[in-house]
Amino acid sequence: MTPSTSPPVAVLAADVPPRTTPSNYPEPFASRMRGREKRALGNVFGLANFGVNLTTLAPGAVSSLRHAHTKQDEFVYILAGHPVLVTDAGETPLAPGMCAGFRAGTGDAHHLTNPTDQPVTYLEVGDRTPGDVGSYPDDDLVAAMEGGRWRFQHKDGAPYA
Amino acid sequence: MTPSTSPPVAVLAADVPPRTTPSNYPEPFASRMRGREKRALGNVFGLANFGVNLTTLAPGAVSSLRHAHTKQDEFVYILAGHPVLVTDAGETPLAPGMCAGFRAGTGDAHHLTNPTDQPVTYLEVGDRTPGDVGSYPDDDLVAAMEGGRWRFQHKDGAPYA
Repeated sequence: MTPSTSPPVAVLAADVPPRTTPSNYPEPFASRMRGREKRALGNVFGLANFGVNLTTLAPGAVSSLRHAHTKQDEFVYILAGHPVLVTDAGETPLAPGMCAGFRAGTGDAHHLTNPTDQPVTYLEVGDRTPGDVGSYPDDDLVAAMEGGRWRFQHKDGAPYA
Repeated sequence: MTPSTSPPVAVLAADVPPRTTPSNYPEPFASRMRGREKRALGNVFGLANFGVNLTTLAPGAVSSLRHAHTKQDEFVYILAGHPVLVTDAGETPLAPGMCAGFRAGTGDAHHLTNPTDQPVTYLEVGDRTPGDVGSYPDDDLVAAMEGGRWRFQHKDGAPYA
């Protein structure tokens, strides 16, 4: 590798530029991700087996549509702010230093919301096990990971344009 | 699942009990891990594809022997304190909010040291890709992951007792 493509030894996470694509969702869902900013920390170092993002939710923003994965484990650790974790069990208030994990295959869908007037910042980890499918109990959406990209369909199998 | 075996929705990371086995290394290496305390956060939620630990290094403690993995990507995010990251490139001082990733297969060995008089706390993530081997350039040790447990040998292939 040439020096210009070698990853850095370490970085200040806040210095990593935010992802330029705010959301991979089709509309009308992508617009609902406004106020969410992700810094792809793991990619800075060329990690392939899992991703780690530093994610910030502005007041009123959400982490994602509420969803469950068939193959991908996920984990969040709250660094700042007071989000609400929504799962099939209802609403759980979170605070800095709290964490939650979402085991693949349980079918229990989750997301974080920020109902406060202060930003929320957290680390999120998810692995890249092949064959993953995302289900969305509250929305007309199904997602399948194919060739490293999500393919989105309506629940009746029709593709999103 | 009965309620007693269902994972919690979320926990305060500092409330998770520390791992009771301080180190998996054979002696004389296990004793060198004194002052290191790991809370296995991912396991609380039954995560299988990767582990997340909240790890604290007392003054003078180290994260591990300096090592590289053939299959496992690793990532650390510093929450508190000022450790030093040691890699083949030398010493890199870290601070809260900094992160580093260690891509599998590069052969560049790493660990963290705490040369300060204050504790260091960080999150560490590592996946559980099968067939992983750990190499230790500074020590007479080779580790192979077999059946979910590390098997340790001398570099000449002799087993540790």
